[in-house]
Amino acid sequence: MKKLINSSETLVTEELQGIAAAHPDLVKVHFDPNFIVRADAPVNGKVALVSGGGSGHEPMHGGFVGKGMLDAACPGAVFTSPTPDQVLEATKTVNGGAGVLHIIKNYTGDVMNFEMAADLARGQGIQVAAVVTNDDVAVKDSLYTAGRRGVGVTVLLEKIAGAAAERGDSLSQVTAIANKVNENGRSMGMALTSCTVPHAGRPTFEIGDDEMEIGIGIHGEPGRERMKMKSAHEIVEMMATAIVDDLPYSSGEEVLAFVNGMGGTPLIELYVVYNELNTFLTARGITIARNLIGSYITSLEMAGCSITLLKLDDELKQLWDAPVKTPGLRWGA
Amino acid sequence: MKKLINSSETLVTEELQGIAAAHPDLVKVHFDPNFIVRADAPVNGKVALVSGGGSGHEPMHGGFVGKGMLDAACPGAVFTSPTPDQVLEATKTVNGGAGVLHIIKNYTGDVMNFEMAADLARGQGIQVAAVVTNDDVAVKDSLYTAGRRGVGVTVLLEKIAGAAAERGDSLSQVTAIANKVNENGRSMGMALTSCTVPHAGRPTFEIGDDEMEIGIGIHGEPGRERMKMKSAHEIVEMMATAIVDDLPYSSGEEVLAFVNGMGGTPLIELYVVYNELNTFLTARGITIARNLIGSYITSLEMAGCSITLLKLDDELKQLWDAPVKTPGLRWGA
Repeated sequence: MKKLINSSETLVTEELQGIAAAHPDLVKVHFDPNFIVRADAPVNGKVALVSGGGSGHEPMHGGFVGKGMLDAACPGAVFTSPTPDQVLEATKTVNGGAGVLHIIKNYTGDVMNFEMAADLARGQGIQVAAVVTNDDVAVKDSLYTAGRRGVGVTVLLEKIAGAAAERGDSLSQVTAIANKVNENGRSMGMALTSCTVPHAGRPTFEIGDDEMEIGIGIHGEPGRERMKMKSAHEIVEMMATAIVDDLPYSSGEEVLAFVNGMGGTPLIELYVVYNELNTFLTARGITIARNLIGSYITSLEMAGCSITLLKLDDELKQLWDAPVKTPGLRWGA
Repeated sequence: MKKLINSSETLVTEELQGIAAAHPDLVKVHFDPNFIVRADAPVNGKVALVSGGGSGHEPMHGGFVGKGMLDAACPGAVFTSPTPDQVLEATKTVNGGAGVLHIIKNYTGDVMNFEMAADLARGQGIQVAAVVTNDDVAVKDSLYTAGRRGVGVTVLLEKIAGAAAERGDSLSQVTAIANKVNENGRSMGMALTSCTVPHAGRPTFEIGDDEMEIGIGIHGEPGRERMKMKSAHEIVEMMATAIVDDLPYSSGEEVLAFVNGMGGTPLIELYVVYNELNTFLTARGITIARNLIGSYITSLEMAGCSITLLKLDDELKQLWDAPVKTPGLRWGA
């Protein structure tokens, strides 16, 4: 295992120290329990958004804390759910009196620990709602999941619901928009290589020099099929067909297309993938009205990509375009 | 070789098609010869900035075209200098009457081809100045270079000189600022793995499972030393010592610290490196007043990082903070 770290035990703490040192204008980092909040938290009268999950998916979620996106993020150990006390403390810290929305990716441990924290927070008089993302069309039920896994849509949801909270929407309104994003978004991933969880010290799975895994999960969970390496054209066709047919997305519709790198994939390849996706959708009469291209929900140093499509309407476009100012996503501010 | 591409022959063209499809609001892509210009080029009365180099270093340079940064970028084949006609056509297309600054990384082919294009442009009545970046302290003379290699400072220079041009500085003023950035910036890189040039189809160099290369070039050129893998703490100490001692950077000074991923390195590791760098500099009385953390000057899918320090004054800080709106770097706009 070759990584730019000191030890697997100190990795997350040192990463958080790095974030704290780098972005004091945007975020504040709390330690023990670990969570990251907006520098100006709590924002009185604003609905607060709290997300979290295992570390190793950076910039998600800590990189998305800031004005126009998340109020707090709770990073667990690598690929490990945050504990209820992390989520509870984050929820209390960012509560501005208008309620708190928990944004949870559908993994059993995450759902359980966020629910426990929500119950405890409610016991302390805080109004808490939750949305669980489950956009991965690859498989139903998985290594750590009952139902579908939550993946790329989570990034888009955090941006869009964050904008809704920022403009003053109520907790029920923000929750409704968050659910709308999840319902209108679908994703699928693929991997060329495994990642290595630092504590394990060896690759999560073995894969041949001429093989790829279609439908991979963000923790290296098995996907739909292991197969021989194919061209970008064929890979995009397989993934995009599965996504488009699932909702379905239809001719005449507008989408946000999110081409995501898994952590070890260079940007030049993501633009090739985007080009193929654009050609694929155009041929089906689907217009890419917005896009996001880069490594935003990663699996350590895994090579591969995921594609997420989100059906857009005018409101979602407006919320997507609204200013955002976080370490990992920033425009208009 | 496993890559998300269709073929090594079509890679750069398809990447450029992807950029054109993704960012029509920011840039326009010209094909044959290939170059990317600001969507609103030429900007009358503004000094225009043109850079370029081999592909495989994305987002540099094409991702840095847009308001507040480059007017044009000329991508060569992977790790191959752009041709004089690419640079000439880009120069003519973005010339707004106030002159054009060529920003060149110090590689023999790049310098030669940009000089040839500058001569041809001058013959057509365009005022052309040039700055050659040579910030890599690792080695003097290298596989493709006489003198020091140009690396991370190029990204910072393009942002800062771009802001100077945007505020209306003359060609000689923008050139002076560009030279100031190069003179006050130093870098060093390291690699955990090689990259694979698509056309070659196999890794550029062999490296053991427990080895790293300190002082690597962005094309995999040999560095200072091949050695056994060390901790992030030891790696940063080696690199930062070489950088700080070179200029030198002294106690009481402010710097911009740029921690760059080589393409295959996840963000979580870059924050660990940043944390070590911050500790190292603080102990020497050097303050990080600005920072940039992410993969901005890459070497395909190489795993590793580079560190760049730039000595700051009030003017450089102001120019760094100015709005920028490009596919790869964006804030305040």
